[in-house]
Amino acid sequence: MKIALAQINTIIGDFEYNTAKILDYIAQAKEAGADIVVFPELATTGYPPRDFLEFKDFIRRSENSLNQVRKATKDIAVVVGAPSLNPVVEGKDLYNSVVFIYDEKELYRQHKTLLPTYDIFDEARYFEEASTWDIVNFKGKRIALTVCEDLWNLGNDNPLYTINPMDEMMQHQPDFIINVSASPFDYAHASERIKVLKENVRAYGVPLFYVNHVGAQTDIIFDGGSMAIASNQNVVKELPYFEEHLEIFNLEDFSDVQKEIFQTKNKMTLIHDALVLGIKDYFGKIGFKNAILGLSGGLDSAVTAVLATEALGKENVRVLLMPSQFSSDHSIKDAEDLAKNLGIRYDIVSIKDVFESYLTSLNPLLEQKPFDVTEENIQARIRGNLLMALSNKFGNILLNTTNKSEMSVGYGTLYGDLSGGISVIADVYKTEVYELAHYINRHDEIIPNNTIVKPPSAELRPDQKDSDSLPDYEILDEILRLYIEGRKGPNDIISLGFDDKLVNRVLKMVNRNEFKRHQTAPVLRVSPKAFGMGRRMPIVAKYLETK
Amino acid sequence: MKIALAQINTIIGDFEYNTAKILDYIAQAKEAGADIVVFPELATTGYPPRDFLEFKDFIRRSENSLNQVRKATKDIAVVVGAPSLNPVVEGKDLYNSVVFIYDEKELYRQHKTLLPTYDIFDEARYFEEASTWDIVNFKGKRIALTVCEDLWNLGNDNPLYTINPMDEMMQHQPDFIINVSASPFDYAHASERIKVLKENVRAYGVPLFYVNHVGAQTDIIFDGGSMAIASNQNVVKELPYFEEHLEIFNLEDFSDVQKEIFQTKNKMTLIHDALVLGIKDYFGKIGFKNAILGLSGGLDSAVTAVLATEALGKENVRVLLMPSQFSSDHSIKDAEDLAKNLGIRYDIVSIKDVFESYLTSLNPLLEQKPFDVTEENIQARIRGNLLMALSNKFGNILLNTTNKSEMSVGYGTLYGDLSGGISVIADVYKTEVYELAHYINRHDEIIPNNTIVKPPSAELRPDQKDSDSLPDYEILDEILRLYIEGRKGPNDIISLGFDDKLVNRVLKMVNRNEFKRHQTAPVLRVSPKAFGMGRRMPIVAKYLETK
Repeated sequence: MKIALAQINTIIGDFEYNTAKILDYIAQAKEAGADIVVFPELATTGYPPRDFLEFKDFIRRSENSLNQVRKATKDIAVVVGAPSLNPVVEGKDLYNSVVFIYDEKELYRQHKTLLPTYDIFDEARYFEEASTWDIVNFKGKRIALTVCEDLWNLGNDNPLYTINPMDEMMQHQPDFIINVSASPFDYAHASERIKVLKENVRAYGVPLFYVNHVGAQTDIIFDGGSMAIASNQNVVKELPYFEEHLEIFNLEDFSDVQKEIFQTKNKMTLIHDALVLGIKDYFGKIGFKNAILGLSGGLDSAVTAVLATEALGKENVRVLLMPSQFSSDHSIKDAEDLAKNLGIRYDIVSIKDVFESYLTSLNPLLEQKPFDVTEENIQARIRGNLLMALSNKFGNILLNTTNKSEMSVGYGTLYGDLSGGISVIADVYKTEVYELAHYINRHDEIIPNNTIVKPPSAELRPDQKDSDSLPDYEILDEILRLYIEGRKGPNDIISLGFDDKLVNRVLKMVNRNEFKRHQTAPVLRVSPKAFGMGRRMPIVAKYLETK
Repeated sequence: MKIALAQINTIIGDFEYNTAKILDYIAQAKEAGADIVVFPELATTGYPPRDFLEFKDFIRRSENSLNQVRKATKDIAVVVGAPSLNPVVEGKDLYNSVVFIYDEKELYRQHKTLLPTYDIFDEARYFEEASTWDIVNFKGKRIALTVCEDLWNLGNDNPLYTINPMDEMMQHQPDFIINVSASPFDYAHASERIKVLKENVRAYGVPLFYVNHVGAQTDIIFDGGSMAIASNQNVVKELPYFEEHLEIFNLEDFSDVQKEIFQTKNKMTLIHDALVLGIKDYFGKIGFKNAILGLSGGLDSAVTAVLATEALGKENVRVLLMPSQFSSDHSIKDAEDLAKNLGIRYDIVSIKDVFESYLTSLNPLLEQKPFDVTEENIQARIRGNLLMALSNKFGNILLNTTNKSEMSVGYGTLYGDLSGGISVIADVYKTEVYELAHYINRHDEIIPNNTIVKPPSAELRPDQKDSDSLPDYEILDEILRLYIEGRKGPNDIISLGFDDKLVNRVLKMVNRNEFKRHQTAPVLRVSPKAFGMGRRMPIVAKYLETK
């Protein structure tokens, strides 16, 4: 029996596009002689469809898609994820289902049991959990159908859940397991996924076919990495990351698999490739080709410019250099060098005159108060306004260049340098941005070395350095990671040897700046805990602020 | 037996403040001779604490608060909502509980059963549901303790749930029911709440004591409206809306209640009072006193200025009038008249010179392209920058003045007029803003009549009117309400008699502008479906966009 895994890139809510994509892959799989072709979780709608699921019209359109798919199942079985209406009045209106269709008939629909409701996931908001489990018989094989999280409570080890659907299905003695997934990328996830899937194979003793989405859906990036695992727990092949792929497996070859085929798990390779795909899909899926960003001569905008150029092509990226009276000479030079290295268009617009005109207009109202963060922010907002003007005039989307360390502590100007349609590196801590820069320069000096080695500065007042107002990034990032990723309280962090005043100051900054994060662009998610839907914090709150 | 209902206003995560508040109300209730004093759901932490619940440190601090409360329960029983650690490994880490404490001992903890996971609610993200139910015995009375949603599945009528905890508790024959709630305001909710609570009393035949939070937590506003209902289903008294209140009820007086005491349910009164409290608490809880906003002479900024003045006092509100070459004379006059009526400080800063300096600086890059939305947006962003400059210099929080119709269709400039710390009327459709203006002017002409009667205009180009680019607000708002509140698809809306081209255009505008809503300030929620956490939409998506 030949089983095809179709790792596809969908667009949320674009039923015509997704259906055409599915039909195309069915045709390819059929051509290659597959008996079954498997698509990811909620493949008709794209994942995550969020509150579109509350629109009956949306579910109706998904059913229409399934109906078109059904007509293409002559001589090939299709396994595909889609939402189902719950026919019972009680409980949530929908199920998250995997549908088995063959010869224009739906043979079986298995609903998802374990509904992730943590981090970016909201499945209990929409779906009722399965309460019955069965398998499907096809060409003499007994097949267990599961959806994503259903395989993540093995041995009831996951504290989040109290049921394990595979245990229920094993009563029917399946010959193999199919899992359709929407399992988002983070730099640590692929290894964990392989481990969990292998454990399932060890526990149940049958081969496993796993299909994941690929592609970015705004902030959420799917890496693919679909795979088949033989019953000896060896990975027959892990499909490529960050690209669409169809792979045909022959079940008969699975009896004695010795060589495992994996993708690299190098952290910077993964982050780099994920961010490039994140930019590419953001633009592609909203129908824009061109990006713009401000190039300061600093590291963050340099890394962002490189990633954008890789994603969109050098002819589709333009940058603005916007010096002020506080800009150093090397900033202009470093920025120019980078633009030349990348072969992207750059223009220089001084913000001096506009800045002066603001000060003149505001002068009667400023009551002779001294230069402070006000004047710094005016500069940042002039730059934002200039970039948005070109964005509006020429249809370039502005890329935000903030890093995760700055986003955490609110080191940035709302409506100024925090502007942009998508935040490219705001889930990458400053210390990791350095690593990424070295990764980018691994063959050639694309990012000027001076940009990497000079002390970081916002250059919004004379001789300013980041270190004037922030602790060293080495220490800051460690504290942030313990608080944000680790969800540790101040005492737990202090007990690890950090200065108590510093810890309290940093945590307070993180909490107080929730209002800024609330108003910034979606953040391409590459870590296990990114800003955005996966981290939901009150804005007006005083946790850790009163001391 | 005397039962006190303590309708309190908490600050999320401010354990010192909340505990002091609870202790103060315990003392007052004791002074008044109460046997029991009841506080709202999650009163120790404030509601909604969101992902702070994932911090063990946060839960520990809540337990500390409970411990302090325990020491104050000599001669008075305290019923209070708080999170509990789930001692079992399986399932979510927490319960959402109501705790009964008397004489320094915790007599009983009942966990919440029905966990709302829709609209703004995320309780399945954090909490395990109760699986055991009992009552507490106190001074010869048998008391059933419930948490909010637990009373909202009467007769198993609520399709969201399959269990009804009160049915379980009735086996123990309670003498009355206590319900601790965190039930957010919307203009239709109070009537619904009374109906549901009365139905509970009818079904179970015993009195009910219901305590709700009051106060705004960023976007979510709690109206209070706590109440006691006698067993003949008459409301003994509904507590005041939008203010803290302690009320003592004598159970012995409940045998024959004839007169019901309610608060007004007039929609504009409720919206007005909710928005005033929303502003007041936003400022009070982040420790700011002063607001700033731009006054255009139009209706939205006028209404916002009035609400801000009521909330903060005229000495704490200042406005900027920022005319351009496209401003009409009446705009300045209308804005000045309003500022004078309110007695608030106003200043006039022309944006002409700054606008010219942008055009000069940008000129080499604009390629002689004609005036378009670019130049409109530059003006809006100059105004945003001027307002933020004064905000930064003097510590005034900028109020956003966008209405819900504009927010829906994206009629506004990101980083320009969409700036601000909190969006005051962005859950109020334009047609409702008119109603609110008439309500404000019910005694005197506070808002100049000319502001109300003139055709709405953004005044960003010569002779511009809203109606140049938008349908009449009467029609637009109806379509928006069907789509946003009603979650109806295009065909359902068209079948109600609306023009199909218009419907498709409007729905597409709503979906396409999700990226703007993602980057704007939190919206004070007054409707059953507001922008923000209660409406979670993908940004990159094509639902209804491809046709």
